[in-house]
Amino acid sequence: MHTADVSSDLTWQLFPVEQSMRTARLKQKPCVLWFTGLSGAGKSTVAGLVESLLFQKGYLTYVLDGDNVRHGLCRDLDFTDQGRSENIRRVGEVSKLLVDAGLIVLTAFISPFRDDRALVRNLIGDNDYVEIFINASLEVCEARDPKGLYKKAREKQVAAFTGIDSPYEPPEHPELIINTDTQTAIACAEKIVKYLYSTGRLLLDSTEYSIRREPVNVLG
Amino acid sequence: MHTADVSSDLTWQLFPVEQSMRTARLKQKPCVLWFTGLSGAGKSTVAGLVESLLFQKGYLTYVLDGDNVRHGLCRDLDFTDQGRSENIRRVGEVSKLLVDAGLIVLTAFISPFRDDRALVRNLIGDNDYVEIFINASLEVCEARDPKGLYKKAREKQVAAFTGIDSPYEPPEHPELIINTDTQTAIACAEKIVKYLYSTGRLLLDSTEYSIRREPVNVLG
Repeated sequence: MHTADVSSDLTWQLFPVEQSMRTARLKQKPCVLWFTGLSGAGKSTVAGLVESLLFQKGYLTYVLDGDNVRHGLCRDLDFTDQGRSENIRRVGEVSKLLVDAGLIVLTAFISPFRDDRALVRNLIGDNDYVEIFINASLEVCEARDPKGLYKKAREKQVAAFTGIDSPYEPPEHPELIINTDTQTAIACAEKIVKYLYSTGRLLLDSTEYSIRREPVNVLG
Repeated sequence: MHTADVSSDLTWQLFPVEQSMRTARLKQKPCVLWFTGLSGAGKSTVAGLVESLLFQKGYLTYVLDGDNVRHGLCRDLDFTDQGRSENIRRVGEVSKLLVDAGLIVLTAFISPFRDDRALVRNLIGDNDYVEIFINASLEVCEARDPKGLYKKAREKQVAAFTGIDSPYEPPEHPELIINTDTQTAIACAEKIVKYLYSTGRLLLDSTEYSIRREPVNVLG
Protein backbone atom coordinates (compact mmCIF):
# COMPACT_ATOMS: atom_id res chain seq x y z
CA MET A 1 0.00 0.00 0.00
CA HIS A 2 1.22 3.48 -0.84
CA THR A 3 1.08 6.00 1.95
CA ALA A 4 1.41 9.75 2.21
CA ASP A 5 4.79 9.27 3.88
CA VAL A 6 6.95 12.16 2.73
CA SER A 7 10.12 10.09 2.96
CA SER A 8 9.18 8.47 -0.36
CA ASP A 9 9.15 11.96 -1.89
CA LEU A 10 12.63 13.02 -0.83
CA THR A 11 14.01 12.56 -4.31
CA TRP A 12 11.94 15.57 -5.32
CA GLN A 13 14.05 17.75 -3.04
CA LEU A 14 11.05 19.68 -1.91
CA PHE A 15 11.35 21.68 1.26
CA PRO A 16 9.02 24.03 3.12
CA VAL A 17 8.49 27.46 1.62
CA GLU A 18 9.80 29.88 4.18
CA GLN A 19 9.58 33.63 4.61
CA SER A 20 13.15 34.14 3.40
CA MET A 21 12.33 32.41 0.09
CA ARG A 22 9.25 34.53 -0.50
CA THR A 23 11.01 37.78 0.36
CA ALA A 24 14.00 36.93 -1.84
CA ARG A 25 11.61 36.60 -4.75
CA LEU A 26 9.57 39.68 -3.87
CA LYS A 27 12.76 41.71 -3.27
CA GLN A 28 11.39 43.31 -0.16
CA LYS A 29 11.98 42.89 3.54
CA PRO A 30 8.52 42.64 5.03
CA CYS A 31 7.49 44.58 8.09
CA VAL A 32 4.48 46.07 9.81
CA LEU A 33 3.99 49.81 9.45
CA TRP A 34 1.86 50.41 12.51
CA PHE A 35 0.05 53.73 12.15
CA THR A 36 -1.31 55.11 15.41
CA GLY A 37 -3.03 58.41 16.12
CA LEU A 38 -6.30 60.15 16.79
CA SER A 39 -9.38 59.71 14.65
CA GLY A 40 -9.04 62.20 11.81
CA ALA A 41 -5.24 62.43 12.11
CA GLY A 42 -4.87 60.88 8.66
CA LYS A 43 -3.82 57.28 9.36
CA SER A 44 -5.90 55.65 6.62
CA THR A 45 -5.22 58.41 4.12
CA VAL A 46 -1.45 58.29 4.55
CA ALA A 47 -1.40 54.47 4.72
CA GLY A 48 -3.35 54.32 1.45
CA LEU A 49 -0.92 56.70 -0.23
CA VAL A 50 2.11 54.77 1.04
CA GLU A 51 0.55 51.59 -0.35
CA SER A 52 -0.08 53.26 -3.71
CA LEU A 53 3.50 54.54 -3.92
CA LEU A 54 4.93 51.14 -2.97
CA PHE A 55 2.73 49.32 -5.46
CA GLN A 56 3.77 51.68 -8.23
CA LYS A 57 7.38 50.87 -7.38
CA GLY A 58 6.72 47.14 -7.65
CA TYR A 59 6.21 46.04 -4.03
CA LEU A 60 3.51 43.91 -2.46
CA THR A 61 1.61 45.39 0.46
CA TYR A 62 -1.61 45.05 2.39
CA VAL A 63 -3.58 47.51 4.49
CA LEU A 64 -5.47 46.35 7.57
CA ASP A 65 -8.01 48.85 8.85
CA GLY A 66 -11.35 49.04 10.56
CA ASP A 67 -13.19 48.44 7.31
CA ASN A 68 -11.78 45.00 6.61
CA VAL A 69 -11.29 43.87 10.23
CA ARG A 70 -14.18 45.13 12.36
CA HIS A 71 -16.77 43.70 9.95
CA GLY A 72 -14.98 40.37 9.67
CA LEU A 73 -12.36 38.89 11.96
CA CYS A 74 -13.35 41.11 14.90
CA ARG A 75 -17.10 41.35 14.34
CA ASP A 76 -17.66 39.68 17.72
CA LEU A 77 -15.83 42.42 19.66
CA ASP A 78 -17.29 45.52 21.26
CA PHE A 79 -15.66 48.90 21.89
CA THR A 80 -14.92 48.49 25.59
CA ASP A 81 -11.26 48.66 26.62
CA GLN A 82 -11.14 44.85 26.60
CA GLY A 83 -12.78 44.64 23.18
CA ARG A 84 -10.34 47.20 21.79
CA SER A 85 -7.34 45.39 23.23
CA GLU A 86 -8.45 42.07 21.78
CA ASN A 87 -9.07 43.82 18.45
CA ILE A 88 -5.50 45.12 18.45
CA ARG A 89 -4.11 41.74 19.52
CA ARG A 90 -5.84 39.98 16.62
CA VAL A 91 -4.69 42.63 14.16
CA GLY A 92 -1.18 42.08 15.50
CA GLU A 93 -1.45 38.32 15.00
CA VAL A 94 -2.81 38.71 11.46
CA SER A 95 -0.06 41.22 10.69
CA LYS A 96 2.46 38.64 11.83
CA LEU A 97 1.01 36.07 9.43
CA LEU A 98 1.06 38.58 6.56
CA VAL A 99 4.69 39.45 7.31
CA ASP A 100 5.49 35.74 7.35
CA ALA A 101 3.77 35.56 3.95
CA GLY A 102 6.25 38.20 2.73
CA LEU A 103 4.10 41.32 2.61
CA ILE A 104 4.71 44.84 3.81
CA VAL A 105 1.70 45.38 6.09
CA LEU A 106 0.18 48.76 6.90
CA THR A 107 -2.25 48.98 9.80
CA ALA A 108 -4.48 51.96 10.43
CA PHE A 109 -6.04 51.80 13.89
CA ILE A 110 -6.23 54.47 16.57
CA SER A 111 -4.61 51.92 18.93
CA PRO A 112 -4.63 54.42 21.80
CA PHE A 113 -3.06 52.25 24.52
CA ARG A 114 0.70 51.86 25.00
CA ASP A 115 0.33 48.39 26.46
CA ASP A 116 -1.50 47.11 23.39
CA ARG A 117 1.10 48.56 21.04
CA ALA A 118 3.88 47.11 23.20
CA LEU A 119 2.20 43.72 22.94
CA VAL A 120 2.14 43.98 19.14
CA ARG A 121 5.77 45.13 19.00
CA ASN A 122 6.70 42.15 21.11
CA LEU A 123 4.62 39.81 18.93
CA ILE A 124 6.07 41.00 15.61
CA GLY A 125 9.56 41.49 16.95
CA ASP A 126 11.38 44.79 17.29
CA ASN A 127 13.10 44.39 13.92
CA ASP A 128 9.96 44.23 11.82
CA TYR A 129 7.68 46.54 13.78
CA VAL A 130 7.74 50.16 12.61
CA GLU A 131 5.59 52.40 14.78
CA ILE A 132 4.45 55.52 12.98
CA PHE A 133 2.84 58.22 15.06
CA ILE A 134 0.42 60.10 12.82
CA ASN A 135 0.35 63.31 14.76
CA ALA A 136 -2.14 66.12 14.62
CA SER A 137 -3.61 68.14 17.44
CA LEU A 138 -7.02 67.24 18.79
CA GLU A 139 -8.24 70.65 17.57
CA VAL A 140 -7.19 69.92 13.99
CA CYS A 141 -8.63 66.38 14.06
CA GLU A 142 -11.90 67.64 15.50
CA ALA A 143 -12.10 70.38 12.88
CA ARG A 144 -11.56 67.79 10.12
CA ASP A 145 -14.00 65.30 11.67
CA PRO A 146 -14.20 63.25 8.43
CA LYS A 147 -16.73 60.77 9.82
CA GLY A 148 -18.67 63.20 12.01
CA LEU A 149 -17.62 61.18 15.07
CA TYR A 150 -16.25 64.07 17.15
CA LYS A 151 -19.57 65.85 16.77
CA LYS A 152 -21.38 62.73 17.96
CA ALA A 153 -18.94 62.29 20.86
CA ARG A 154 -19.47 65.90 21.97
CA GLU A 155 -23.21 65.27 21.82
CA LYS A 156 -22.75 62.08 23.90
CA GLN A 157 -24.09 59.92 21.06
CA VAL A 158 -20.80 58.01 21.03
CA ALA A 159 -19.24 56.83 24.28
CA ALA A 160 -15.58 56.42 25.19
CA PHE A 161 -14.34 58.29 22.12
CA THR A 162 -10.56 58.63 22.00
CA GLY A 163 -9.42 62.19 22.71
CA ILE A 164 -12.79 63.23 24.14
CA ASP A 165 -13.72 60.88 26.95
CA SER A 166 -11.18 58.11 26.47
CA PRO A 167 -7.41 58.67 26.60
CA TYR A 168 -4.90 58.57 23.73
CA GLU A 169 -1.47 57.61 24.96
CA PRO A 170 1.07 59.02 22.47
CA PRO A 171 4.02 56.76 21.52
CA GLU A 172 7.13 57.35 23.59
CA HIS A 173 9.64 55.95 21.12
CA PRO A 174 8.00 55.62 17.70
CA GLU A 175 10.20 54.87 14.70
CA LEU A 176 8.61 57.80 12.88
CA ILE A 177 6.57 60.85 13.79
CA ILE A 178 4.55 62.26 10.91
CA ASN A 179 2.86 65.60 11.43
CA THR A 180 -0.16 65.78 9.19
CA ASP A 181 -1.18 69.31 10.10
CA THR A 182 1.89 70.97 8.61
CA GLN A 183 2.37 69.04 5.34
CA THR A 184 0.31 67.34 2.64
CA ALA A 185 -0.62 63.69 2.83
CA ILE A 186 1.63 62.94 -0.14
CA ALA A 187 4.61 64.57 1.57
CA CYS A 188 3.86 62.41 4.62
CA ALA A 189 3.66 59.25 2.52
CA GLU A 190 6.92 60.03 0.71
CA LYS A 191 8.73 60.42 4.02
CA ILE A 192 7.63 56.94 5.01
CA VAL A 193 8.71 55.43 1.69
CA LYS A 194 12.08 57.17 2.06
CA TYR A 195 12.42 55.66 5.52
CA LEU A 196 11.80 52.20 4.07
CA TYR A 197 14.51 52.74 1.46
CA SER A 198 16.93 54.08 4.07
CA THR A 199 16.42 51.01 6.24
CA GLY A 200 17.08 48.63 3.34
CA ARG A 201 13.62 47.14 3.00
CA LEU A 202 12.99 47.94 -0.69
CA LEU A 203 15.38 46.01 -2.91
CA LEU A 204 14.11 46.08 -6.49
CA ASP A 205 16.29 47.91 -8.96
CA SER A 206 14.66 49.90 -11.72
CA THR A 207 15.19 47.16 -14.34
CA GLU A 208 13.44 44.61 -12.23
CA TYR A 209 10.71 47.09 -11.54
CA SER A 210 9.97 47.59 -15.22
CA ILE A 211 9.96 43.82 -15.72
CA ARG A 212 7.58 43.37 -12.87
CA ARG A 213 5.28 46.07 -14.11
CA GLU A 214 5.30 45.02 -17.76
CA PRO A 215 5.85 41.26 -18.02
CA VAL A 216 7.69 40.23 -21.17
CA ASN A 217 5.28 39.22 -23.89
CA VAL A 218 6.76 36.05 -25.39
CA LEU A 219 4.47 36.30 -28.39
CA GLY A 220 6.36 39.48 -29.22
CA MET B 1 -2.69 75.60 6.77
CA HIS B 2 -2.03 72.42 4.82
CA THR B 3 -4.25 69.50 5.59
CA ALA B 4 -4.23 65.78 4.81
CA ASP B 5 -7.07 66.34 2.35
CA VAL B 6 -6.50 63.90 -0.51
CA SER B 7 -8.12 66.22 -3.03
CA SER B 8 -4.91 68.25 -3.13
CA ASP B 9 -3.09 65.06 -4.17
CA LEU B 10 -5.26 64.22 -7.17
CA THR B 11 -2.64 65.34 -9.63
CA TRP B 12 -0.62 62.32 -8.54
CA GLN B 13 -3.30 60.06 -9.97
CA LEU B 14 -3.03 57.73 -7.04
CA PHE B 15 -5.87 55.32 -6.43
CA PRO B 16 -6.45 52.50 -3.97
CA VAL B 17 -4.51 49.31 -4.57
CA GLU B 18 -7.13 46.66 -5.18
CA GLN B 19 -7.05 42.89 -5.39
CA SER B 20 -7.29 42.95 -9.18
CA MET B 21 -4.12 45.08 -9.40
CA ARG B 22 -2.15 42.76 -7.14
CA THR B 23 -3.30 39.62 -8.93
CA ALA B 24 -2.55 41.10 -12.37
CA ARG B 25 1.02 41.63 -11.21
CA LEU B 26 1.33 38.26 -9.50
CA LYS B 27 -0.25 36.49 -12.49
CA GLN B 28 -2.39 34.30 -10.32
CA LYS B 29 -6.06 34.20 -9.40
CA PRO B 30 -6.08 33.88 -5.63
CA CYS B 31 -8.27 31.38 -3.85
CA VAL B 32 -8.52 29.34 -0.69
CA LEU B 33 -7.61 25.67 -0.96
CA TRP B 34 -9.51 24.40 2.05
CA PHE B 35 -8.11 21.00 3.06
CA THR B 36 -10.42 18.99 5.31
CA GLY B 37 -10.07 15.47 6.64
CA LEU B 38 -9.22 13.31 9.61
CA SER B 39 -6.08 13.77 11.69
CA GLY B 40 -3.37 11.79 9.92
CA ALA B 41 -5.12 11.91 6.53
CA GLY B 42 -2.27 14.00 5.14
CA LYS B 43 -3.69 17.54 4.99
CA SER B 44 -0.53 19.35 6.12
CA THR B 45 1.77 17.08 4.11
CA VAL B 46 -0.13 17.53 0.86
CA ALA B 47 -0.68 21.26 1.47
CA GLY B 48 3.05 21.71 2.04
CA LEU B 49 3.88 19.88 -1.18
CA VAL B 50 1.33 21.90 -3.17
CA GLU B 51 2.89 25.07 -1.78
CA SER B 52 6.37 23.89 -2.73
CA LEU B 53 5.29 23.03 -6.27
CA LEU B 54 3.51 26.37 -6.70
CA PHE B 55 6.47 28.32 -5.33
CA GLN B 56 8.83 26.53 -7.70
CA LYS B 57 6.54 27.57 -10.55
CA GLY B 58 6.66 31.22 -9.47
CA TYR B 59 3.46 31.68 -7.48
CA LEU B 60 2.86 33.26 -4.09
CA THR B 61 1.10 31.16 -1.49
CA TYR B 62 0.57 30.87 2.24
CA VAL B 63 -0.33 27.92 4.44
CA LEU B 64 -2.52 28.40 7.51
CA ASP B 65 -2.42 25.48 9.92
CA GLY B 66 -2.66 24.69 13.60
CA ASP B 67 0.97 25.60 14.15
CA ASN B 68 0.70 29.23 13.11
CA VAL B 69 -2.90 29.83 14.21
CA ARG B 70 -3.59 27.96 17.45
CA HIS B 71 -0.51 29.48 19.14
CA GLY B 72 -1.30 32.97 17.92
CA LEU B 73 -4.58 34.34 16.63
CA CYS B 74 -6.64 31.59 18.27
CA ARG B 75 -4.64 31.07 21.46
CA ASP B 76 -7.68 32.12 23.52
CA LEU B 77 -9.88 29.32 22.14
CA ASP B 78 -10.45 25.86 23.60
CA PHE B 79 -11.32 22.63 21.81
CA THR B 80 -15.03 22.54 22.61
CA ASP B 81 -17.39 22.58 19.62
CA GLN B 82 -17.82 26.33 20.10
CA GLY B 83 -14.06 26.91 20.32
CA ARG B 84 -13.49 24.86 17.18
CA SER B 85 -16.18 26.71 15.27
CA GLU B 86 -14.76 30.09 16.26
CA ASN B 87 -11.28 28.84 15.29
CA ILE B 88 -12.56 27.92 11.82
CA ARG B 89 -14.44 31.21 11.50
CA ARG B 90 -11.28 33.22 12.25
CA VAL B 91 -9.23 31.11 9.87
CA GLY B 92 -11.90 31.80 7.24
CA GLU B 93 -11.70 35.54 7.90
CA VAL B 94 -7.89 35.57 7.73
CA SER B 95 -8.02 33.51 4.53
CA LYS B 96 -10.32 36.13 3.07
CA LEU B 97 -7.83 38.88 3.88
CA LEU B 98 -4.96 36.86 2.37
CA VAL B 99 -6.99 36.26 -0.80
CA ASP B 100 -7.71 39.98 -0.94
CA ALA B 101 -3.95 40.50 -0.62
CA GLY B 102 -3.53 38.36 -3.76
CA LEU B 103 -2.26 35.09 -2.32
CA ILE B 104 -3.25 31.50 -2.96
CA VAL B 105 -4.09 30.31 0.55
CA LEU B 106 -3.88 26.71 1.73
CA THR B 107 -5.56 25.80 5.01
CA ALA B 108 -4.94 22.53 6.82
CA PHE B 109 -7.50 22.00 9.57
CA ILE B 110 -9.60 18.94 10.35
CA SER B 111 -12.66 21.25 10.14
CA PRO B 112 -15.01 18.36 10.87
CA PHE B 113 -18.33 20.23 10.79
CA ARG B 114 -20.29 20.90 7.60
CA ASP B 115 -21.85 24.06 9.01
CA ASP B 116 -18.44 25.59 9.72
CA ARG B 117 -17.16 24.81 6.24
CA ALA B 118 -20.38 26.18 4.74
CA LEU B 119 -19.83 29.39 6.71
CA VAL B 120 -16.32 29.73 5.29
CA ARG B 121 -17.50 28.99 1.75
CA ASN B 122 -20.10 31.68 2.15
CA LEU B 123 -17.54 34.11 3.58
CA ILE B 124 -14.95 33.59 0.83
CA GLY B 125 -17.50 33.27 -1.94
CA ASP B 126 -18.19 30.15 -3.97
CA ASN B 127 -15.83 31.24 -6.77
CA ASP B 128 -12.71 31.41 -4.65
CA TYR B 129 -13.34 28.60 -2.18
CA VAL B 130 -11.93 25.23 -3.23
CA GLU B 131 -12.85 22.48 -0.80
CA ILE B 132 -10.42 19.57 -0.92
CA PHE B 133 -11.43 16.43 0.91
CA ILE B 134 -8.22 14.68 1.99
CA ASN B 135 -9.65 11.23 2.28
CA ALA B 136 -8.24 8.22 4.06
CA SER B 137 -10.05 5.64 6.15
CA LEU B 138 -10.03 5.96 9.92
CA GLU B 139 -8.08 2.68 10.03
CA VAL B 140 -5.31 4.05 7.84
CA CYS B 141 -5.17 7.36 9.73
CA GLU B 142 -5.07 5.59 13.06
CA ALA B 143 -2.31 3.28 11.83
CA ARG B 144 -0.26 6.30 10.70
CA ASP B 145 -0.97 8.26 13.91
CA PRO B 146 1.86 10.75 13.19
CA LYS B 147 1.33 12.70 16.41
CA GLY B 148 0.33 9.77 18.62
CA LEU B 149 -3.06 11.39 19.14
CA TYR B 150 -5.21 8.40 18.22
CA LYS B 151 -3.40 6.34 20.83
CA LYS B 152 -4.06 9.06 23.41
CA ALA B 153 -7.71 9.30 22.34
CA ARG B 154 -8.16 5.53 22.71
CA GLU B 155 -6.60 5.78 26.17
CA LYS B 156 -9.00 8.65 27.00
CA GLN B 157 -6.11 11.05 27.50
CA VAL B 158 -7.57 13.29 24.78
CA ALA B 159 -11.26 14.12 24.78
CA ALA B 160 -13.58 14.74 21.83
CA PHE B 161 -11.09 13.49 19.25
CA THR B 162 -12.43 13.56 15.70
CA GLY B 163 -13.18 10.09 14.39
CA ILE B 164 -13.06 8.49 17.85
CA ASP B 165 -15.49 10.29 20.11
CA SER B 166 -16.32 13.34 18.03
CA PRO B 167 -17.88 13.15 14.55
CA TYR B 168 -16.26 13.94 11.20
CA GLU B 169 -18.83 15.06 8.66
CA PRO B 170 -17.42 14.33 5.19
CA PRO B 171 -17.93 16.99 2.51
CA GLU B 172 -20.99 16.42 0.34
CA HIS B 173 -19.86 18.43 -2.67
CA PRO B 174 -16.14 19.12 -2.41
CA GLU B 175 -14.34 20.55 -5.43
CA LEU B 176 -11.76 17.78 -5.13
CA ILE B 177 -11.49 14.41 -3.38
CA ILE B 178 -7.91 13.28 -2.85
CA ASN B 179 -7.37 9.74 -1.62
CA THR B 180 -4.11 9.59 0.27
CA ASP B 181 -4.19 5.86 1.00
CA THR B 182 -3.86 4.79 -2.64
CA GLN B 183 -1.26 7.24 -4.01
CA THR B 184 1.83 9.13 -2.88
CA ALA B 185 1.67 12.58 -1.38
CA ILE B 186 3.40 14.00 -4.45
CA ALA B 187 0.84 12.45 -6.77
CA CYS B 188 -1.87 14.02 -4.60
CA ALA B 189 -0.18 17.43 -4.73
CA GLU B 190 0.26 17.29 -8.50
CA LYS B 191 -3.44 16.57 -8.97
CA ILE B 192 -4.26 19.72 -7.04
CA VAL B 193 -1.81 21.83 -9.06
CA LYS B 194 -3.30 20.42 -12.27
CA TYR B 195 -6.74 21.39 -11.02
CA LEU B 196 -5.52 24.96 -10.48
CA TYR B 197 -4.17 25.11 -14.04
CA SER B 198 -7.36 23.64 -15.45
CA THR B 199 -9.45 26.27 -13.69
CA GLY B 200 -7.31 29.12 -15.02
CA ARG B 201 -5.77 30.28 -11.76
CA LEU B 202 -2.08 30.01 -12.72
CA LEU B 203 -1.20 32.49 -15.42
CA LEU B 204 2.59 32.84 -15.62
CA ASP B 205 4.17 31.63 -18.82
CA SER B 206 7.53 29.91 -18.63
CA THR B 207 9.49 33.02 -19.70
CA GLU B 208 7.99 35.08 -16.93
CA TYR B 209 8.66 32.27 -14.52
CA SER B 210 12.37 32.23 -15.30
CA ILE B 211 12.48 36.01 -14.93
CA ARG B 212 10.75 35.82 -11.62
CA ARG B 213 13.06 33.12 -10.35
CA GLU B 214 16.29 34.70 -11.58
CA PRO B 215 15.99 38.47 -11.60
CA VAL B 216 18.05 40.15 -14.31
CA ASN B 217 21.40 41.29 -12.97
CA VAL B 218 21.88 44.76 -14.34
CA LEU B 219 25.56 44.72 -13.39
CA GLY B 220 25.99 41.45 -15.38
